[in-house]
Amino acid sequence: MNDIDIETLKGIANQLRVHSIAATTAAGSGHPTSCCSAADVVAALFFAHMRYDPKNPHFYNNDRFILSKGHAAPLLYAAWAETGLFPVEDLLKLRQLGSDLEGHPTPRLPFADVATGSLGQGLSVGVGMALCARLDKLDYRTYVLMGDGECAEGGVWEAASLAGFSQLNNLVAVVDVNRLGQSQATMLGHNLDAYKKRFEAFGWRTEEIDGHDLDEILEVLAAVGLGSQPLVILAKTLKGAGVSFLQDKEGWHGKPLSKEEAERAIAELQPTAKSGIGQPIPAPTQLPAPKNDAPGSYPPLTYNLGDQVATREAFGNALLRIGTVDPRVVAVDGDTKNSTYSEKFLKKFPDRFTECFIAEQNMVGVATGFSTRGKVPFASTFATFFSRAADQIRVAGISGANIKLVGSHVGVSIGEDGPSQMGLEDLALMRAIVGSTVLYPSDAVCAEKLMDQMATHHGLCFLRTSRPKTAVLYSKDETFPIGGAKVLRQSANDQVTVVAAGVTLYEALKAADALKNEGIGITVIDAYSIKPLAKDVIQGAAQKTRNLVVTVEDHYAEGGLGDAVAGELSAAGIKVHKLAVSELPRSGKPEELLAKYGIDAHAISAKVKSLS
Amino acid sequence: MNDIDIETLKGIANQLRVHSIAATTAAGSGHPTSCCSAADVVAALFFAHMRYDPKNPHFYNNDRFILSKGHAAPLLYAAWAETGLFPVEDLLKLRQLGSDLEGHPTPRLPFADVATGSLGQGLSVGVGMALCARLDKLDYRTYVLMGDGECAEGGVWEAASLAGFSQLNNLVAVVDVNRLGQSQATMLGHNLDAYKKRFEAFGWRTEEIDGHDLDEILEVLAAVGLGSQPLVILAKTLKGAGVSFLQDKEGWHGKPLSKEEAERAIAELQPTAKSGIGQPIPAPTQLPAPKNDAPGSYPPLTYNLGDQVATREAFGNALLRIGTVDPRVVAVDGDTKNSTYSEKFLKKFPDRFTECFIAEQNMVGVATGFSTRGKVPFASTFATFFSRAADQIRVAGISGANIKLVGSHVGVSIGEDGPSQMGLEDLALMRAIVGSTVLYPSDAVCAEKLMDQMATHHGLCFLRTSRPKTAVLYSKDETFPIGGAKVLRQSANDQVTVVAAGVTLYEALKAADALKNEGIGITVIDAYSIKPLAKDVIQGAAQKTRNLVVTVEDHYAEGGLGDAVAGELSAAGIKVHKLAVSELPRSGKPEELLAKYGIDAHAISAKVKSLS
Repeated sequence: MNDIDIETLKGIANQLRVHSIAATTAAGSGHPTSCCSAADVVAALFFAHMRYDPKNPHFYNNDRFILSKGHAAPLLYAAWAETGLFPVEDLLKLRQLGSDLEGHPTPRLPFADVATGSLGQGLSVGVGMALCARLDKLDYRTYVLMGDGECAEGGVWEAASLAGFSQLNNLVAVVDVNRLGQSQATMLGHNLDAYKKRFEAFGWRTEEIDGHDLDEILEVLAAVGLGSQPLVILAKTLKGAGVSFLQDKEGWHGKPLSKEEAERAIAELQPTAKSGIGQPIPAPTQLPAPKNDAPGSYPPLTYNLGDQVATREAFGNALLRIGTVDPRVVAVDGDTKNSTYSEKFLKKFPDRFTECFIAEQNMVGVATGFSTRGKVPFASTFATFFSRAADQIRVAGISGANIKLVGSHVGVSIGEDGPSQMGLEDLALMRAIVGSTVLYPSDAVCAEKLMDQMATHHGLCFLRTSRPKTAVLYSKDETFPIGGAKVLRQSANDQVTVVAAGVTLYEALKAADALKNEGIGITVIDAYSIKPLAKDVIQGAAQKTRNLVVTVEDHYAEGGLGDAVAGELSAAGIKVHKLAVSELPRSGKPEELLAKYGIDAHAISAKVKSLS
Repeated sequence: MNDIDIETLKGIANQLRVHSIAATTAAGSGHPTSCCSAADVVAALFFAHMRYDPKNPHFYNNDRFILSKGHAAPLLYAAWAETGLFPVEDLLKLRQLGSDLEGHPTPRLPFADVATGSLGQGLSVGVGMALCARLDKLDYRTYVLMGDGECAEGGVWEAASLAGFSQLNNLVAVVDVNRLGQSQATMLGHNLDAYKKRFEAFGWRTEEIDGHDLDEILEVLAAVGLGSQPLVILAKTLKGAGVSFLQDKEGWHGKPLSKEEAERAIAELQPTAKSGIGQPIPAPTQLPAPKNDAPGSYPPLTYNLGDQVATREAFGNALLRIGTVDPRVVAVDGDTKNSTYSEKFLKKFPDRFTECFIAEQNMVGVATGFSTRGKVPFASTFATFFSRAADQIRVAGISGANIKLVGSHVGVSIGEDGPSQMGLEDLALMRAIVGSTVLYPSDAVCAEKLMDQMATHHGLCFLRTSRPKTAVLYSKDETFPIGGAKVLRQSANDQVTVVAAGVTLYEALKAADALKNEGIGITVIDAYSIKPLAKDVIQGAAQKTRNLVVTVEDHYAEGGLGDAVAGELSAAGIKVHKLAVSELPRSGKPEELLAKYGIDAHAISAKVKSLS
């Protein structure tokens, strides 16, 4: 806690309001009233309470601040400008192309660890950071400023539950209860007791305050860290606070003031506004930096050709193998660790494993939180249940988060459990994430080698693993660069190039054998890297097979391997015929289902013959 | 409440256990212990409490039962078999290809309103049903049987919040608190008080019981409907209850018994087991049936060519227009109704509108619930926020739910708000939903005509609307069949076929004008139906332009319009060149962003010229 006086803090809060209003009016869009309600809390956190180096927002033991209510971005930008990080004049470039001061924060800014703006995600990221602080034996605290409206998001309660269970007393949430949502009042309005009961039921310590009373704000902040529970500060505020004609009025969400209105508002605020520049800011503690260096290499593999190993199990083996030499590797799972095989890592490294229970949104958010602190988190569940966290994954993509998602139990080849458990749309989802890498190994060697690369490649990666055991196809010395593909069968006079991955690769190989007996040659390619796709390899092969390609995938026909190949190669005149699951599948035995939905060796052979 | 005696009910419960064990052992997979914990509750509900016609599971005033813990499917199947709906011998066909008794329930079965198995979704569907009962003035009640593990899912708390707020005293949740998850004990174990506090904080009445004591079960069920709150029954149970060597033991999740184990288990249960067949079941009340008939036609439109109308506003106009004559139409929104324009409907039909606040998972589940009761629910939010509900949408696809999703604010053309608010992956997500229809109108006339068809087409539909105002292109008498496309420009000697939709269609038309001035002709197609795609129309046009197609979309390059066109047409030798957003966009003015990311008229012209 700094010894700044209350009047100065009040002045800084008003200065932040002035900046927020001026910037949004200059931009012609934005959310000034959502900034005004939280200005006092932000002034107190940034100029009296948080311990950080304002010149080095990335310092490893700085307190972290997440603006979960990302539409209050101008307030965040104003706070950092007032610490002196960049010129306050830049604030007027808000929302202009070329300025990093975008409509909602993104990590293009050094002080935004994650993108926010899709509501209800910040608390999960904060949980990940708080868990990481504990793992790294650092004493930074994580502060998450939330809107009241976003507390309607279930992901908030997933995060709250894990934080309470994990007794994260280094995590502080502040809810800016300003009563007004976008289109109407929130469900709970100013009923702070309702919020209090909810957070308490999820294991939190709660404090109710007047969010515009800086004495009260500082008083509850002085007690941060007491006890074993995470703390939520429920701040009763007014939207548009500080400006008489905005305060607590409906109809002002997401609207900038006109130039004239802005002048009137600023005239009310300016007399008491004070700059924060030059104010001393509490410094972070100097503690040993966490060891977040990548190792030079990972231990070798031990598979033999022909071994029967499911790629999901190879993932588990790889996680353990990599984790042994790479201290950055941590893991999270959603109560599927005995199916995904992440439990292999848990058994060896319990401190580096977080059981997130059946709460995939929070699981991905927690992984993102770990990634912002230099860790390499692997999150695993059934591939299809990552769709539960699709928005968190989307935002992780926007954040450029270095997270690794591993989805098992894909396609109809899982068999009897039926369609609710089958990942049949995961490739479509993951390909459409900006900056993503999408990998789909067929055998254990490929799965493990791709894991090595996922650990060292910065960015969001998805590894698609299969439930059935499959034969090891590759020597343990084979390399599998991201963006590559393997040509497994090829001979002169091949009729068609068959591109497959996962279980269908084995069907393609079977088809190749069967067709060979009938005198028909096919090229078979293992497209283990779906994004980026090995366009040149596939195109080169296809050009030797009359430009004919057949893709075969245990996935729906939309957005998966077939669309990827067609989307990249059709411009070059390659003709792509897709075999994929094209209707709602049923329960049954894996081999029955591969046949019924037309993606087995027989279907491939029939397709090739129809093209011969 | 029926006057069945307790000993008979206990016998039926054991009969359900016997069936569940026998069926999963015959199948060689499944979750017998998860069935055993809930058998007493299910016996009480089905044979002593719920009011329904067991010969007609679809009857409009039957009490509804949702097995949210879908992995206990054999228990559900056994209960219905014991009502006499189908032969108990069929239970042994569990999980076999050809049997509708799949690993998890789907609506292929007449008594499963929705697919379950992706956990934490049933309560939202139940909220939709309970709201619908109130709207239709019916007195059926909705019972949702949940697992304790799935209470970790945030969607549960979104649903709980809306149910409490809406005072749904016709909704009853039963949580089967059996303490054991898939891979370990649940977070809260047998701490029923923790669940109680959570549900109470969300506005529910709670009852804690021994879930194996039928007297207690019947006692709390007798008080269903009292007061104004929804009721949750927290049933303390043992996983594997009734079988000495399974009961409350770890390591038995999702494992069938061996034949020998099954014999031992059945030997313990069989002596007290009793058939339910022939037991009287309380009948539903006879009340007037809801009017759920589609009208013959919808009112005409009033736009004129050249009017500037955003398609999102046309959606709002259409919803109101359709709703005026179609009593089936209801609407839900996630606190974006003033941006999506669903508020137009709210103002006229407040009883048929449900504000779901910022909780998209629950919003989609509620819509699904309404759809199971014969309504045609339209759910609207920003397109990108549907990714928050991707798993609910996926399961709605599996359910064949008749829901209509309308996503606004797509692409970089929203401008200054930045990437977190831009729908850039929604087409990929929606195309990959089984059985989905994906529509993307460019002008108000097309948007409204597609709305008419969405209301009458059974199945999951997605309408992609845009933020900017665009000129009305079409006469109000134009028709837009699902699966169609419009050729807007075409002349002899066209060089390239440009396929676009939404804001990029206008860019394509501008490009056509500009290129014409340079003596280059292009064909321009409005691909308003992305799935199904008008393959013949596009192919026919492309064959007249040297097989060359350029697609242009305000969406990422993966899984959208370009991939759809390439995926469907490349086999015919059509060469598809994609223009799409291929990097993380920034904030800026819409026209600046269309230019920067290469999807404006200039980019189209340049691409065409490069191919000329």
